[in-house]
Amino acid sequence: MEKPNTRPNEFELVSRYLEPLVLDQEAAACLKDDCAVFGVTAGHEVVISVDTLIADLHFFKNDPPKQIAQKILRVNLSDIASSGAEPKFYFLAMSLPSTIGIDWIEQFCLGLGVDQANFGISLLGGDTTSTPGPLSLTATVIGEVPQGKAIRRGGASEDEDVYLTGVIGDAALALSLIKTNGLDSVSEDFPVLLDRYRLPQPRTVLAPDLRQIASACIDISDGLAADLGHICTTSGIAADIKISWLPISETARVLLREDVRNWQTIISGGDDFELLFTAQPQFSNAIKMLSKEKNIQINRIGKTKKGSGVNFFDPKGKHFPVKKSGWQHF
Amino acid sequence: MEKPNTRPNEFELVSRYLEPLVLDQEAAACLKDDCAVFGVTAGHEVVISVDTLIADLHFFKNDPPKQIAQKILRVNLSDIASSGAEPKFYFLAMSLPSTIGIDWIEQFCLGLGVDQANFGISLLGGDTTSTPGPLSLTATVIGEVPQGKAIRRGGASEDEDVYLTGVIGDAALALSLIKTNGLDSVSEDFPVLLDRYRLPQPRTVLAPDLRQIASACIDISDGLAADLGHICTTSGIAADIKISWLPISETARVLLREDVRNWQTIISGGDDFELLFTAQPQFSNAIKMLSKEKNIQINRIGKTKKGSGVNFFDPKGKHFPVKKSGWQHF
Repeated sequence: MEKPNTRPNEFELVSRYLEPLVLDQEAAACLKDDCAVFGVTAGHEVVISVDTLIADLHFFKNDPPKQIAQKILRVNLSDIASSGAEPKFYFLAMSLPSTIGIDWIEQFCLGLGVDQANFGISLLGGDTTSTPGPLSLTATVIGEVPQGKAIRRGGASEDEDVYLTGVIGDAALALSLIKTNGLDSVSEDFPVLLDRYRLPQPRTVLAPDLRQIASACIDISDGLAADLGHICTTSGIAADIKISWLPISETARVLLREDVRNWQTIISGGDDFELLFTAQPQFSNAIKMLSKEKNIQINRIGKTKKGSGVNFFDPKGKHFPVKKSGWQHF
Repeated sequence: MEKPNTRPNEFELVSRYLEPLVLDQEAAACLKDDCAVFGVTAGHEVVISVDTLIADLHFFKNDPPKQIAQKILRVNLSDIASSGAEPKFYFLAMSLPSTIGIDWIEQFCLGLGVDQANFGISLLGGDTTSTPGPLSLTATVIGEVPQGKAIRRGGASEDEDVYLTGVIGDAALALSLIKTNGLDSVSEDFPVLLDRYRLPQPRTVLAPDLRQIASACIDISDGLAADLGHICTTSGIAADIKISWLPISETARVLLREDVRNWQTIISGGDDFELLFTAQPQFSNAIKMLSKEKNIQINRIGKTKKGSGVNFFDPKGKHFPVKKSGWQHF
């Protein structure tokens, strides 16, 4: 039977596309109740992250719907990981403009399903409404952490090491190139950068170990400079970072050879969703082993010290001024 | 000092307006972490409701900001109450158009503060972003319920009584009058109806008793006919309702004398946020006492029976056909 690409009504949307995503039928009551009800593992606390993504502000309207679905989950999963918690469930509030049809919804729900499997989470509920505005998604992701073991921004002390997972700057470089050259050009010439913007890799597998190791942790969403600033302000310390120690991709290296000012984008740009954490020097071997075991690079990028503020230094030990202080949400 | 009515930046918004709403500083980490972390009372489960309200779809753009704030909390608090749970915390995701200034935000946060006190809840986190679209709010409200005691839609059996709290129809009548006569006219002639639309009264104080009494419960957001339909479908039963038993306001009674077709609006219209529940006949005295104790009217409006579907009957016992089946969310 031919399937016209019209909007399903709310009943169809829920029964045909969303219900299959519910793995814990009892908690979610098959999405038939207004509330979800669930228990918490003994000796654990609940960890919750809420984030909104809006079309053409936080993703491109014509991005593949599968990746939009994954991104709304992943920006929250990254927050959950930064707390050292393990994700369990999510709620999704979707405001859909009238241009969204069945094909889009099918692909979007496919993306949700793929990441449910990738990260071991299940849909528990949410809300669906139409909007005259842009496509807007708010996810509430629920995790668990052993009581008192959540990692906070404010736990860092002086004389600790500062670490970063993965590489940074690719997502911000993609956005910067799109601004100058347009989306199509970047999509053709720098697909890897664009993927890094569209599909962050939340470091959820590191969370259980990090809560033994890290004194403070944050995920880089506003940019390295701003997010390290958040740790320093909340913890009441300062940090010195060597830019030659910053882990960057091969593509970022090429772009830096073309224009050294790209360092600014790498240091200040957001959307990396890598974990930035502090740890006492005694954990340096444990961190090396963790990196090897999970096959995720974890690099030391600097040290904390008494004082306030974040300073960056070039290879000659000269102070490297950072121009803008990260993403302002509005 | 004069205070220009411009938009505060995100930092000001959080530190000046939202932080004072955080009562549980440790759980919310003063809104400085991406996640909130909280424990759950021993022997209890977590109950979560997520709802989105969009300007000019779910409230009027120029409604008093204080009442918009209260409404986004209350539509969720009503869901929490319908589960028999007690509310604890909330998260708020706000997407603000550029027209929103400091005065609006001050009033909005005042509304949040008032209802935090009214309902014993605290802000734990959320997200704030700008939007080129309409003002959009998504609240995640967290409650607790003793383990296994949550009331669900699917728990009703045949030969139970059907009850309704408060009066119904006022909110839908307000909307219907606004459609014909305009907002200003209704605001002048029927302020009580308009208030019922703008400021629902979630029946949170009934929740602890209802979980001993009710076999199924739902809050009326889609309309009596549709929401009772949800209970019947999920429980696998039918219900017969006497329209002469439906509790309505004095204003609704006047409007019915003018036009008897207003019964359709009362029965099918949404936004009442009263609780509709079923209970075994043995609880009829307990329900009378509860109503008296809490000073909230609770009326028996009909009975459940074997079968499927909801039927309404007029005072002569004649079948009363209901024309539309409630609110379609898109």
